[in-house]
Amino acid sequence: MTQYYLGIDLGGTFVKTAVLTDGAEILGRTSRETGASSGRDNVLNSMTEAAKEAVSGAGLKMADIKAVGLGTPGIVLHATGVVVTAPNLPGWENLPLRDEMSRRLGRPVVIENDANAAAWGEFWVGAGKGLNSMAMLTLGTGIGGGIIINGEVLHGAHDVAAELGHMTIDMNGPRCGCGNYGCLEAFAAAPATVRRFVEGIKGGQKSPLSQRVARGEAITTKDIYEDAVAGCEYSRKTIHDTGRYLGVGISIIMLSIDAEMVVLTGGLAKAGQMLLDGVWQEYAKRTYEYLAKRTKIVFAKLGNDAGVIGAAGCALKTHATSR
Amino acid sequence: MTQYYLGIDLGGTFVKTAVLTDGAEILGRTSRETGASSGRDNVLNSMTEAAKEAVSGAGLKMADIKAVGLGTPGIVLHATGVVVTAPNLPGWENLPLRDEMSRRLGRPVVIENDANAAAWGEFWVGAGKGLNSMAMLTLGTGIGGGIIINGEVLHGAHDVAAELGHMTIDMNGPRCGCGNYGCLEAFAAAPATVRRFVEGIKGGQKSPLSQRVARGEAITTKDIYEDAVAGCEYSRKTIHDTGRYLGVGISIIMLSIDAEMVVLTGGLAKAGQMLLDGVWQEYAKRTYEYLAKRTKIVFAKLGNDAGVIGAAGCALKTHATSR
Repeated sequence: MTQYYLGIDLGGTFVKTAVLTDGAEILGRTSRETGASSGRDNVLNSMTEAAKEAVSGAGLKMADIKAVGLGTPGIVLHATGVVVTAPNLPGWENLPLRDEMSRRLGRPVVIENDANAAAWGEFWVGAGKGLNSMAMLTLGTGIGGGIIINGEVLHGAHDVAAELGHMTIDMNGPRCGCGNYGCLEAFAAAPATVRRFVEGIKGGQKSPLSQRVARGEAITTKDIYEDAVAGCEYSRKTIHDTGRYLGVGISIIMLSIDAEMVVLTGGLAKAGQMLLDGVWQEYAKRTYEYLAKRTKIVFAKLGNDAGVIGAAGCALKTHATSR
Repeated sequence: MTQYYLGIDLGGTFVKTAVLTDGAEILGRTSRETGASSGRDNVLNSMTEAAKEAVSGAGLKMADIKAVGLGTPGIVLHATGVVVTAPNLPGWENLPLRDEMSRRLGRPVVIENDANAAAWGEFWVGAGKGLNSMAMLTLGTGIGGGIIINGEVLHGAHDVAAELGHMTIDMNGPRCGCGNYGCLEAFAAAPATVRRFVEGIKGGQKSPLSQRVARGEAITTKDIYEDAVAGCEYSRKTIHDTGRYLGVGISIIMLSIDAEMVVLTGGLAKAGQMLLDGVWQEYAKRTYEYLAKRTKIVFAKLGNDAGVIGAAGCALKTHATSR
């Protein structure tokens, strides 16, 4: 008999949910605003309502759901389901999120860090399907990381493993949002990419976007990418450089855990080969030739669904019963 | 009945061997020159003779040895026991070392990278005894690394995991012996520490060692440490800075794998608290407070024996039979 799982992907802006079969088929889904600024109870209510809506949308009752997986930002104690802290979620400190959501939904709940959940999704049924180990970088406003070793999410001794965006790649580098200097995120996340672009334009670099920069308009990495595709050399170089910084980070990851595959996802990953060329330029220099020849760096397959699929997959991994 | 294992620690300068009981008691040991410059067969002969000498020195016959563990520099394919390449050992390319040594000694042989073997030694019966995960940095002419996760040496998908000395900590940093720029090793290994010290003296820093530097005499990290202990501020700062670079590297390791303990060993580790103060200065800045409060960074317990004990331990882990 088919077993059903509910995945919840809690982001700073949106809560996404999906009901999945144990074969990873998506039956029903929702997306709604997180409402983080309205406080903790509001977020918990949003998730609860979204969960119920997804289940009824799939033509099921909550009792049909074998277990619920929830991916959340922050440091998550996976053994107890307690969120220690989550930077963008006020009131989220030491929250027993697993037990709270289990009480609200009446089903077993598994809590996972959001980047870990997304990595698990890609590993379970996406780019990393069938492998034994994988590392994933989520390239967005921040850079998230997930590591799978021996077919398991690596949580680490203190549930802080795979915080790959905050690895130092230049100890004298620019300040990161985390307070540290020279983190990978401070070089290669979307805001850092835009900052480098704007600084260059102000320093005299030419681009069709120059006038928008001069008017003080906000620029996005999508703008820069489209500009690069349209032929702007400086935009192309900006994305290439983001790739180079990622290449440094990936060399560190590979010399540390030597994963079977490195998967890139998130908005910036849409830059595709332009980004990958930069990645390889640095990566190949910074690892042994033996390793560089064998390394696989690919783009994710599940897109924005990785988080919600992975969350459901975490629930399945923990609560599936043989049949 | 007690089972006996032979450990061989192959270094660029010395081959060390020891016979161990399955309780990690050392019964007999030898040390002799590797003779690497005389070629591959000479090294293989050195190891073979040293092995036989250690066994007879322990009052045993080779047939009493359950299995042999051999730690070697280089990239080691642990599944096949082939050494892909080892920088300081001429003729070591694609060498089926496991089978060759097994043929010579008539016993099962397990091959492991030398830094991994030393890490396994500390994990088995040293500083990491009883833990689940551990990372080790060996601080010498180079910086070697070993990672244990879930009680197993992490080999990685291509047997290149835990090459921690070659992680970039400053992408614009000085050139490393490996050809890359800004590796941890290029900042914090013994030659880098001496180079920084000498450059400072030439730039006007004062130390009782200044005259030796002026005469062009070779300085060692031991000299610098003794100078620091004797009260030289600049020598103390030099070692503190080495610690700071290590702290950056350890922050990367912890944000990647989040080990239960980080163990420091090798010649530079003798600098003790002076080094550790530098480590913590950077480490605490470059990780989450939550993690920094819980991180254990300690010195190794087995000293120079870690390699040979760990090699024997790898043999035991693979070939022990219950009794």
